[in-house]
Amino acid sequence: MCRWLAYSGSPIKLEELLVKRDRSLIDQSLHARQGATTTNGDGFGVGWYEEGEEPRVYRSTHPAWNDRNLRELAAGISSPLFFAHIRASTGTAIQETNTHPFRHGRWLWMHNGLVRDFHRVRRELVLAIDESLFASIEGTTDSEVMFYLALTFGLESDPVGAVERMVGHVERTGRSRGIELPIQMTVATTDGRSVWAFRYSSEGTSRSLYFSTKLETLRALHPEIEELSGLSDETRIVVSEPLGDLPGAWNEVPESHVGIVKPGEDELRPFTPRL
Amino acid sequence: MCRWLAYSGSPIKLEELLVKRDRSLIDQSLHARQGATTTNGDGFGVGWYEEGEEPRVYRSTHPAWNDRNLRELAAGISSPLFFAHIRASTGTAIQETNTHPFRHGRWLWMHNGLVRDFHRVRRELVLAIDESLFASIEGTTDSEVMFYLALTFGLESDPVGAVERMVGHVERTGRSRGIELPIQMTVATTDGRSVWAFRYSSEGTSRSLYFSTKLETLRALHPEIEELSGLSDETRIVVSEPLGDLPGAWNEVPESHVGIVKPGEDELRPFTPRL
Amino acid sequence: MCRWLAYSGSPIKLEELLVKRDRSLIDQSLHARQGATTTNGDGFGVGWYEEGEEPRVYRSTHPAWNDRNLRELAAGISSPLFFAHIRASTGTAIQETNTHPFRHGRWLWMHNGLVRDFHRVRRELVLAIDESLFASIEGTTDSEVMFYLALTFGLESDPVGAVERMVGHVERTGRSRGIELPIQMTVATTDGRSVWAFRYSSEGTSRSLYFSTKLETLRALHPEIEELSGLSDETRIVVSEPLGDLPGAWNEVPESHVGIVKPGEDELRPFTPRL
Amino acid sequence: MCRWLAYSGSPIKLEELLVKRDRSLIDQSLHARQGATTTNGDGFGVGWYEEGEEPRVYRSTHPAWNDRNLRELAAGISSPLFFAHIRASTGTAIQETNTHPFRHGRWLWMHNGLVRDFHRVRRELVLAIDESLFASIEGTTDSEVMFYLALTFGLESDPVGAVERMVGHVERTGRSRGIELPIQMTVATTDGRSVWAFRYSSEGTSRSLYFSTKLETLRALHPEIEELSGLSDETRIVVSEPLGDLPGAWNEVPESHVGIVKPGEDELRPFTPRL
Repeated sequence: MCRWLAYSGSPIKLEELLVKRDRSLIDQSLHARQGATTTNGDGFGVGWYEEGEEPRVYRSTHPAWNDRNLRELAAGISSPLFFAHIRASTGTAIQETNTHPFRHGRWLWMHNGLVRDFHRVRRELVLAIDESLFASIEGTTDSEVMFYLALTFGLESDPVGAVERMVGHVERTGRSRGIELPIQMTVATTDGRSVWAFRYSSEGTSRSLYFSTKLETLRALHPEIEELSGLSDETRIVVSEPLGDLPGAWNEVPESHVGIVKPGEDELRPFTPRL
Repeated sequence: MCRWLAYSGSPIKLEELLVKRDRSLIDQSLHARQGATTTNGDGFGVGWYEEGEEPRVYRSTHPAWNDRNLRELAAGISSPLFFAHIRASTGTAIQETNTHPFRHGRWLWMHNGLVRDFHRVRRELVLAIDESLFASIEGTTDSEVMFYLALTFGLESDPVGAVERMVGHVERTGRSRGIELPIQMTVATTDGRSVWAFRYSSEGTSRSLYFSTKLETLRALHPEIEELSGLSDETRIVVSEPLGDLPGAWNEVPESHVGIVKPGEDELRPFTPRL
Repeated sequence: MCRWLAYSGSPIKLEELLVKRDRSLIDQSLHARQGATTTNGDGFGVGWYEEGEEPRVYRSTHPAWNDRNLRELAAGISSPLFFAHIRASTGTAIQETNTHPFRHGRWLWMHNGLVRDFHRVRRELVLAIDESLFASIEGTTDSEVMFYLALTFGLESDPVGAVERMVGHVERTGRSRGIELPIQMTVATTDGRSVWAFRYSSEGTSRSLYFSTKLETLRALHPEIEELSGLSDETRIVVSEPLGDLPGAWNEVPESHVGIVKPGEDELRPFTPRL
Repeated sequence: MCRWLAYSGSPIKLEELLVKRDRSLIDQSLHARQGATTTNGDGFGVGWYEEGEEPRVYRSTHPAWNDRNLRELAAGISSPLFFAHIRASTGTAIQETNTHPFRHGRWLWMHNGLVRDFHRVRRELVLAIDESLFASIEGTTDSEVMFYLALTFGLESDPVGAVERMVGHVERTGRSRGIELPIQMTVATTDGRSVWAFRYSSEGTSRSLYFSTKLETLRALHPEIEELSGLSDETRIVVSEPLGDLPGAWNEVPESHVGIVKPGEDELRPFTPRL
């Protein structure tokens, strides 16, 4: 089980969410040390935007908790929109090209979950990827194939529809091979302006996904927290697991829904695979 | 907290103890995944002997559980005497020169524990290392300094005495700087013929250490286990944690003792630092 | 341009050919340091057989010249048949799954050269790979795709015919896309008993390939070299570049030929792609 | 032989000097591929400043030419003052803690050259390092020991004097052990405001070192180069080898001199070890 985090809002240092907090993402990768259930030691990645530029990506096969370069970069880089992902491999090789976030042009993509029995459907799924995109595939994960399928199905023009078609295609392909529950996912994707965060699984019991509470509400709840005053009203964090224990700070994304963080009012909509 | 294993006896494939078993060493490094308390993901090392040769060492900074080369080598290499170590760094850099076992000539050394407040005593300890050995120091761990101090104090001619002097020196140096409990250790060292396994700590509550039961006793207890019949009577395993749950298979080394696995009868003796 | 070496004969330590010689393979990877034209610093791999077992593979993304584990293993492992390869990437990612030799069951495969404009033909070539083999593809190189195509075309039962069909398929696919000279290769493959070494390119000016002279001839030429007397008559080395300067020791494989090192008399045959 | 580059002036993207140019630093690390004499494939490092902060450091053991993260960071990070170094090991281990630039507080340090017979003087040199600095030593290179000796001798308050004392100490220590020519170096160090670049060797034939010509002079010489107009008058580059072939762009630092790039007029002074 991987973990991920998406941030959108006032520019902050990456280390604020990746390193510093009591329950930062790196802390979660280490979690096991303090008695919890999962080790995410199979590499990690960070993708971030700066004004007007394509996203940059830093990916490593080391455990996030012992990578010194990550701490340096997280202390040096500020960004208004970034993704971070820590990996627990479900079997595919530990290599940079298999670490999230994946990038295509201005788009980033990261995933927690799996395509079940991926080795049985991999070829058929790969064949459905648009020929012009095929040469860009660099790794061997189910997550990257999901990304290129979504791109094939129109991610750049209709993100929600494209992901609905991608999931429908994976469901259909898996079932045609006798795989009962083909997909389990929380996925985040972004074009550098908006963030789409999906929670879905064939079985209807998807991995957890949380949105941070609206900043103005949070400030009213916790006037004592000074740092909240420095962040814009539109600041949002989406995470596979809450960071920290602030009461009222986190709201679970419902089963089979997609949350959209964007300029103006954010949105939460039902998500239905197109079979 | 690191973990380690020392094997001496009939030549076996390394994978028998590192990879295959239910609770192999790699399994223990992953342990956290199944709900236990520790992740040993900060590198690992294996050292092994073949007839008449200096030991070979394979060390890596990757977590043992996701290093494919380790699985290849463990499947390919047979040895009558080998050490394996999985590391959880207590702060020093994750690099091959900081992974155990350390080697000097025919000797290997590995350690679980720490010299407390090592940064405060490092210089003084390093200065006590024999000048001719100094140039061989390659890393920055307390464990390697303990090894070179033991070599300085005569490890090659009087292993128990040398380790007693090394520990005494560390105790004295630490206390002179106001460090109350300067050392915590289980240590294994070998010249390729015998294995010395030490359990000691300033506070008298040392990390765990186990010897496997004598093979003939084990065979009498478990006539149903066929593979035991293929191993020589002198086969022994020393480990920081038992592998598997075989009743009667493991005996704890008492506090402040050293066990010696050697041709002929093995030995268990009290261990007293020479202050 | 990569370099590779295949050894078959009396068991020797890997280091004899990889490390020790004046112009060992590691030396060749460093060559550039002494004024030559190529740096092979993009990873390396070694594959070796021991009696009755599947081959083992050690692969790393470090330059061969500075990988300590390689020196350790090469000093520790003896084998009657091994492959070694040093890589200079032609663009694909530097990761273990892209380093040679590639393995499938008992077979090893390594390649020096390229499929030209690989990104334009990759999808079509990948689609021709047998569905049952598809899930085993782990990397993104042209070389690995060539291997799985050869397996698809019957490598295990008719090695020369399968490689002729594979090359024919690559030629045909490339030309259909307007690529004039689709392939350039020296390839070695083995099942652990025989070694097949191919030299071919669309343009008819293939990269170099050498066979060592028959041992009995070499002993007659150089009675002064004692170590030759310790090797069996059937010992052969195939290399992309000669090791050392021994007069009479190396014979170039002619353009568009395949050499077969096998029990009994070795063979040299014309190689013709099956279009 | 390593290579390095120091930049001070108008903020630019790191990639401008590390990646993009015809003869960028990465290009120089690859140089060997185009027929030159040296491969610098044993790791690299970059250190950079942003306003008012301590320097950040990114260091890797991969060859600079195949490290994707380096390209990402060099494209993402702008800085008014940065150091870059590509390493060819003279024997010490390939690990991040042995790659330059080294950092202490606000200071960076990088070195091309060597302390001759370092293993014979290492202990004595290390003992001369101030006790409070000792615990910060992380690697095993001569270059890092030179840095900590310079810090011991007052680098932070009197940089030129401290390096003169450091070199004098190395000369004296080496000679007392019968080493005729103890040191060979070009060194750059900075506190984030000024850059000091030293060229010195015991034998008086030091490795090359170049300063870029003053920007106003360069603009007069080459009015056709538009990008020069975007850089401030105080912009300077110091390099072990010229980047590119622009006539008049580079001036060799004379033997036994130190160049100082600083706010106001830059300086060039004789450098004399204090014996």
